[in-house]
Amino acid sequence: MLSFVHRGFCRVISNNSPNISRIMSYVAEERGRPNTLDYRIYYKNSEGQYISPLHDIPWLVSESPRVYNMVCEVPRWTNSKMEIATKESLNPIKQDVKKGKLRYVANCFPHRGYIWNYGAIPQTWENPGHKDKNTGQCGDNDPIDVCEIGSKICKRGEVIQVKVVGVLAMIDEGETDWKVIGINVNDEDAPKINSIGDVEKMKPGYLDATREWFKIYKIPDGKPANCFAFNGDYKDREFAEETIAETHRFWVESHSGTLKCDFAMENICCSDSKFKIDGKAATKILEAAPALDEAEEVTDEKAEKWYYTSLLQGQL
Amino acid sequence: MLSFVHRGFCRVISNNSPNISRIMSYVAEERGRPNTLDYRIYYKNSEGQYISPLHDIPWLVSESPRVYNMVCEVPRWTNSKMEIATKESLNPIKQDVKKGKLRYVANCFPHRGYIWNYGAIPQTWENPGHKDKNTGQCGDNDPIDVCEIGSKICKRGEVIQVKVVGVLAMIDEGETDWKVIGINVNDEDAPKINSIGDVEKMKPGYLDATREWFKIYKIPDGKPANCFAFNGDYKDREFAEETIAETHRFWVESHSGTLKCDFAMENICCSDSKFKIDGKAATKILEAAPALDEAEEVTDEKAEKWYYTSLLQGQL
Repeated sequence: MLSFVHRGFCRVISNNSPNISRIMSYVAEERGRPNTLDYRIYYKNSEGQYISPLHDIPWLVSESPRVYNMVCEVPRWTNSKMEIATKESLNPIKQDVKKGKLRYVANCFPHRGYIWNYGAIPQTWENPGHKDKNTGQCGDNDPIDVCEIGSKICKRGEVIQVKVVGVLAMIDEGETDWKVIGINVNDEDAPKINSIGDVEKMKPGYLDATREWFKIYKIPDGKPANCFAFNGDYKDREFAEETIAETHRFWVESHSGTLKCDFAMENICCSDSKFKIDGKAATKILEAAPALDEAEEVTDEKAEKWYYTSLLQGQL
Repeated sequence: MLSFVHRGFCRVISNNSPNISRIMSYVAEERGRPNTLDYRIYYKNSEGQYISPLHDIPWLVSESPRVYNMVCEVPRWTNSKMEIATKESLNPIKQDVKKGKLRYVANCFPHRGYIWNYGAIPQTWENPGHKDKNTGQCGDNDPIDVCEIGSKICKRGEVIQVKVVGVLAMIDEGETDWKVIGINVNDEDAPKINSIGDVEKMKPGYLDATREWFKIYKIPDGKPANCFAFNGDYKDREFAEETIAETHRFWVESHSGTLKCDFAMENICCSDSKFKIDGKAATKILEAAPALDEAEEVTDEKAEKWYYTSLLQGQL
């Protein structure tokens, strides 16, 4: 696959408001060899211009009903730890690296890889200089994460439109790491899922599994179990929306220069940004990346091994 | 992929007996378009002769310790219902078809597809004319099934060597359908797993999940929950070995002509069989199959949808 188009013809249906349709489209462009250190997914907009998925894709698609863009980093049932490279120019998606090796998240029985389409809302920043009043911990210096609970598996790198129904406040090694619960607005069940309660009704057990997943997922790597604020309870939609908005404000301030952020800030479309570059400069960044090549075979046994977490229960 | 070789250099390690090494190798040869009705996996032996995986691959690799061949039909974490085509000449692997459509087994939350490498022991037959004294039900007219619980994911069609640790007696719509629990003899944990108790110790929760999986997996298709003989308890290794041996005896009798079996019986290597054909005839069968072509995209939403079985608990 040389490239794929995300046609974001986004049809938002809600009981309270008229239908809204917007057209957006992003083209993902792969570089390097899949399953190696140099593999990247870059993005073009519909004008064919290279963009940053972190800075140039709008966080909000629609105000009312509130719909967000989400960049899918880890498709459901996969475990390659792909993420927006916040520190690389144009912020392509790449696989996280630990000790020089591509990172795979342990498959903790009974789960296979990530149990949602997992990704981030663009134009957000969990500010590591800001201590959250609820969690008592600072932000984790990443865009805010989303667990998309719809029926369809996203493509890696796909840009989808989600509505948000709640949020879990994970505390990971002393940092606040919000996990927003959202659903693709085009999912057949989306009209019926508008709250955390609706998730439990429609997909019983999924929320408990989600909390458990985040609690234990690093234990096979020798890390402690993660904790949660609010006693592990999910906060509601309103709280989630406000949390996202706050992380967006931090992102805005990072571009205006009010807040210092160590992200690679280059962008093409953010008119108020101090870090705007032109299309030529963006193309130059792309040209430095190696061409797409045939995928390497995955040999890390962790990619397909199952870890039996109750073996580790002493540590929970 | 045009073909792949299974080098069955089988190193059996046991505490009680000296190491045994045997060399076997089978080549799987794909025909037709993957994900369509005409896709098949045929087999060649190490002499390059086309064979039947059901009749020509020996059930037993070694007597002591007792090691069996297993043909992997459904790799762990997949849900295309691939199976040895018992009624087609040379018994290639094909995807089961229901109402003219390729069959996918529902992903029942929290599971993704089959939770083991799933396949069959060659040269066995669950005789539909024989009422089992324990289950009170006749055989399901298929070779005996194995759930391989090792760490590595098999390739579809791969031939591996397993040792057996127990068996579950599933009753599926009035038929006895034994589910043998086995482990790849080359798995790093194989030396430590010699009984059902060892499975629970090493992989806590796996056996309960296995029983639950078989109980509910057809419910999303509108079928009733499956039942089990022996109150759902796993029978031990000795019982499992005897059950396999019995299904092998039925298979032997089907080839001698003592028992009538509606399988396609053509084989190349079974010297006592009434249905032996020569290599030329086998090649002719292969030549009738369409050439391997590019895979079709899977569009059946069932392939990736998750079914929340507790929604169905009224039926359990």
